[in-house]
Amino acid sequence: MMMDFESFFKNELDGLHQEGRYRVFADLARHRGDFPRATRHTADGTQEVTVWCSNDYLGMGQSPIVTEAMKRAIDECGAGAGGTRNISGTNHYHVLLERELADLHGKESALLFTSGYVSNWAALGTLCSKIPGIIVFSDAGNHASMIEGIRHSKCERVIFKHNSVADLEAKLAAADPRAPKIIAFESVYSMDGDIAPIKEFCDLADKYGAMTYLDEVHAVGMYGPRGGGIAEREGLMHRLTVIEGTLGKAFGVMGGYITGSAALCDFIRSFASGFIFTTALPPALAAGALASIRHLKESQLERFAHQERVRRLRLLLDQRGIPHMVNPSHIVPVMVGDAAKCKWISDLLLDNFGVYVQPINYPTVPKKTERLRITPTPLHSDADIDHLVGALHSLWSRCALARAVA
Amino acid sequence: MMMDFESFFKNELDGLHQEGRYRVFADLARHRGDFPRATRHTADGTQEVTVWCSNDYLGMGQSPIVTEAMKRAIDECGAGAGGTRNISGTNHYHVLLERELADLHGKESALLFTSGYVSNWAALGTLCSKIPGIIVFSDAGNHASMIEGIRHSKCERVIFKHNSVADLEAKLAAADPRAPKIIAFESVYSMDGDIAPIKEFCDLADKYGAMTYLDEVHAVGMYGPRGGGIAEREGLMHRLTVIEGTLGKAFGVMGGYITGSAALCDFIRSFASGFIFTTALPPALAAGALASIRHLKESQLERFAHQERVRRLRLLLDQRGIPHMVNPSHIVPVMVGDAAKCKWISDLLLDNFGVYVQPINYPTVPKKTERLRITPTPLHSDADIDHLVGALHSLWSRCALARAVA
Ligand SMILES: Cc1ncc(COP(=O)(O)O)c(C=O)c1O
Ligand SMILES: Cc1ncc(COP(=O)(O)O)c(C=O)c1O
Repeated sequence: MMMDFESFFKNELDGLHQEGRYRVFADLARHRGDFPRATRHTADGTQEVTVWCSNDYLGMGQSPIVTEAMKRAIDECGAGAGGTRNISGTNHYHVLLERELADLHGKESALLFTSGYVSNWAALGTLCSKIPGIIVFSDAGNHASMIEGIRHSKCERVIFKHNSVADLEAKLAAADPRAPKIIAFESVYSMDGDIAPIKEFCDLADKYGAMTYLDEVHAVGMYGPRGGGIAEREGLMHRLTVIEGTLGKAFGVMGGYITGSAALCDFIRSFASGFIFTTALPPALAAGALASIRHLKESQLERFAHQERVRRLRLLLDQRGIPHMVNPSHIVPVMVGDAAKCKWISDLLLDNFGVYVQPINYPTVPKKTERLRITPTPLHSDADIDHLVGALHSLWSRCALARAVA
Repeated sequence: MMMDFESFFKNELDGLHQEGRYRVFADLARHRGDFPRATRHTADGTQEVTVWCSNDYLGMGQSPIVTEAMKRAIDECGAGAGGTRNISGTNHYHVLLERELADLHGKESALLFTSGYVSNWAALGTLCSKIPGIIVFSDAGNHASMIEGIRHSKCERVIFKHNSVADLEAKLAAADPRAPKIIAFESVYSMDGDIAPIKEFCDLADKYGAMTYLDEVHAVGMYGPRGGGIAEREGLMHRLTVIEGTLGKAFGVMGGYITGSAALCDFIRSFASGFIFTTALPPALAAGALASIRHLKESQLERFAHQERVRRLRLLLDQRGIPHMVNPSHIVPVMVGDAAKCKWISDLLLDNFGVYVQPINYPTVPKKTERLRITPTPLHSDADIDHLVGALHSLWSRCALARAVA
């Protein structure tokens, strides 16, 4: 009569195994100073690999600019923050970092969270639950963290077609004109690498009196003259109500944030459970992120090298007819379209070529769009690119995968 | 007609100001090697203070055992993890730390999260939404992160009276005997410092076929011969389905975790959005936490000194008639019972005595139970305690606050 919980868990896991989407994590020891190399630990021993799927997009996580700042902060302040932001956990590095982030996005204020996930969940969850009668217009491609925040709020939610200006306008026009509204979307979408029509969405926001909430997680540090993201590059930062970002990808550390007006940030600070009731980021993470952001505000080198590596990889993939999704960003999705095949290719890349690219399967992407999501960094050499493309070429030949048509 | 969002935010903030519960964060620079001392940054300059409200309960965040391990990991692996756990972000330190945590709580497996908040939210949210028809029995005093996880799941929820065996039993007995059940509670409650009747709750769980979920956030590192928490001290770890904890309090770093059966942890790992879709903890945090846990598994010194300091503080408070809540833990709540007075006392402690204790007001505690939550650590000296109690004594005299009756 009583439920057997263990059997329930095992059954659910069996289901994943059968669908070929049970995840096995690669156990890696990254090498500082030797990025993108890592040692992979397996049951049989260790293997040296080249990582081709990191979101440390610019290699800043390996940069002495960041690591030395972190070590200095550890020497000064110790390991953890020792409390929530309100109860003894606010460190001077948090304050400095919030100022730096506000400046990066041209906003009055910024607010730190323990991750980008928590920043989306907590900020959208709070805005949508606290503003009476608000309707959220959410892009169909939005990240799990935004979806969970919106779901959490239990407010009225309208999903518009991914990146579709026409569909968003139709849905805004159909909604109660008196209801407060918020449009939530991303700049660079992580899995397809496509970019939202930010200007057009802002125009609609003006027309219909909506707030705008932009996730720039896959753009901060990499686009715009100071690394402020796509909105900076396009001169649109001032038109967005909230710009959200992460410290864990191009900035190379961990943490998340929102930027916006002083009142908006103070409001989230005062009401968001996910901000209030959790230990603050360690001072060393704040110090490392601060150093990373300051560096990328000044230096164009990393961004130029990054874009050049992306172009080169695409060129070589095209020469070999390896199908990859065309997009205006730094993300290179090599399409496979089958979960088992995708896992099989990535296993062979790892075992036979020392190339680590995690297969991306459902639920991260829709079924039948399974892919290898490749992320070149400024630290991948010509030889690395040649090796990767050569490996893909030989696997494509061996397993008769479709070639891109020239 | 269109909503003025800025005015809305400002109005809401005005409300907080009027209720005297607008939070101003103390901007601190903690001093490694000189804990619990910190430099407080204010608009007018800086001030040296003694921190009396840190959740770095044992001062491990300042210990060279932890800080040196973190710096070594930064030198080896760099700053961030560079990806989610599934996509290149699993570092060997995560794997080692999960093994260590499983061992600490006598469980088959453990699973890391970016914080204790996220571990509760994600684990409870996933268990309660994925197990069909489950009813959650949640202690009325549970932490925001547990409440949000339960809320998220939209499952049937029954709140039982705080720490009440009779009320829990009545509610279990009244529920559908065939429904799967989970009892969610904490060991040490953060604000009152009282401790749950874990054994009795486990007996009820057995009787009614329920899973048990225990948050040991304010106990890990501090109780039990190896720092496994209250359940370890009472020989009850094996009776709990899930033991959850944080790396951000007594262990001195940041991060959260659950421990349980291999199938349970694998289930959460495979289905929890808050685990899957977020950048993993930096290797250095995992390495620091690992060092901290290993040390506290062996060493009793910190725990003994901690308990001794708590006893001494209580003794001196009693001698001066300063009212504090009696409880069997290390948390010393000095009761004020009024939001404005509580803030006023803590401002005077800071400005006139260099003593930093954050006032705890609603919504963290119920109205009329506003308090100074004092957390002695092994690193507070006799002189520190004398100074604190002297300061409280003089404020109690000055503002005619009620004395404890002898
Ligand atoms: C679009 C988007 N937003 C937010 C996040 C979460 O950021 P973080 O990794 O800092 O939690 C991610 C991925 O991790 C993401 O892809
Ligand atoms: C009982 C309890 N559980 C969980 C948490 C969250 O842990 P963390 O600070 O690691 O997010 C806290 C406080 O922060 C807490 O008091």
